[in-house]
Amino acid sequence: MNKGLFLTFEGCDGCGKTTVIKEVYEELLKRNISCLLTREPGGSKIAEEIRNIILDRKNTEMDIRTEALLYAASRRQHLIEIILPALKEGKIILCDRYLDSSLAYQGYARGIGIEEVYSINLFATDNQLPDVTFFFDLSAEEGLNRISKNKNREINRLDLEKLDFHKKVYEGYKKIIDKYQNRTFKIIDAHKTIEEEKEEILSIILNLINNG
Amino acid sequence: MNKGLFLTFEGCDGCGKTTVIKEVYEELLKRNISCLLTREPGGSKIAEEIRNIILDRKNTEMDIRTEALLYAASRRQHLIEIILPALKEGKIILCDRYLDSSLAYQGYARGIGIEEVYSINLFATDNQLPDVTFFFDLSAEEGLNRISKNKNREINRLDLEKLDFHKKVYEGYKKIIDKYQNRTFKIIDAHKTIEEEKEEILSIILNLINNG
Repeated sequence: MNKGLFLTFEGCDGCGKTTVIKEVYEELLKRNISCLLTREPGGSKIAEEIRNIILDRKNTEMDIRTEALLYAASRRQHLIEIILPALKEGKIILCDRYLDSSLAYQGYARGIGIEEVYSINLFATDNQLPDVTFFFDLSAEEGLNRISKNKNREINRLDLEKLDFHKKVYEGYKKIIDKYQNRTFKIIDAHKTIEEEKEEILSIILNLINNG
Repeated sequence: MNKGLFLTFEGCDGCGKTTVIKEVYEELLKRNISCLLTREPGGSKIAEEIRNIILDRKNTEMDIRTEALLYAASRRQHLIEIILPALKEGKIILCDRYLDSSLAYQGYARGIGIEEVYSINLFATDNQLPDVTFFFDLSAEEGLNRISKNKNREINRLDLEKLDFHKKVYEGYKKIIDKYQNRTFKIIDAHKTIEEEKEEILSIILNLINNG
């Protein structure tokens, strides 16, 4: 039986990762590689209920530590119900955002502290870290600019944050990559075309599968 | 301005603490002492939404770490919206259950580990520990026996746990009291009458107020 592979995809809002992951996923399927494309809450009923509380625009009085704990809780449930069973089946998991989003958004941009948020996320994931994390490198300004051109995208509470916040998210990601040298990050230049990004990521994944 | 006092009340299900706290609260009011009687989620809309997920009997697939994170999230929001503002006004807070419940129920009885659950609760509370914690000492058997005689009490998901679980909760409390010597625990013998327990607790509180 193949060993599964747990891959996560991170970046600022509007960096284009969701579009590219879908393309990568379809390429993997074409090659008959057993894989799962997911994102939190990803079909876990409990994780979805938790996420509804976080994203509810009426919940303006939500404290930032509450938010961080809720993300961690939703992540835990998604990990247990969706990711771990698929990993056990030897699947390649493509997960759109994981714990690094909490480190960048709540830990750094909201100011709780990267290490403090890392610690509750290690509790939540029981130290289940991704094998590889792809970071889509695109500045906050460019990301928001792309979002503003996309009228079909639904605006939620987090989208309403100001540019300064998103700049901090970007800075946060840079710090995380610098800080956690024990992990494997692959930086994707998100100025490239979707096709180029897809090929780059696919090549990394196929290499991991063949050498894993 | 008086300094507020943060008092928490802990014990196994059925130990009688809720009844006694209410009596103590009324005695304090009679003495014109400004106080707040609360329990999580305690009127915080967000904390209540979180608690609804935890207690929903349909959520049988909930992982124990998810449960611990949700309790911590609900606790955080209740602390921020209800407890801290009242403490700032110099009130005496009587809080029915707080972080020690998570240590005993999720940390010890469910087996996550007391220290691991303590750590996420220190994150949740930003190290805001109670000034004094009253532990109502009554075994699990006696507690459940009292509950079974009370037909008016609504049965939730946690009540359905077996006796062994509640025995572990009791053991957990004993370990917590032993472990955290830096904190102040007052043990109340819950075999006494409500009147006796009320007088004992009241006397401790009045002493704290006068010597605080």
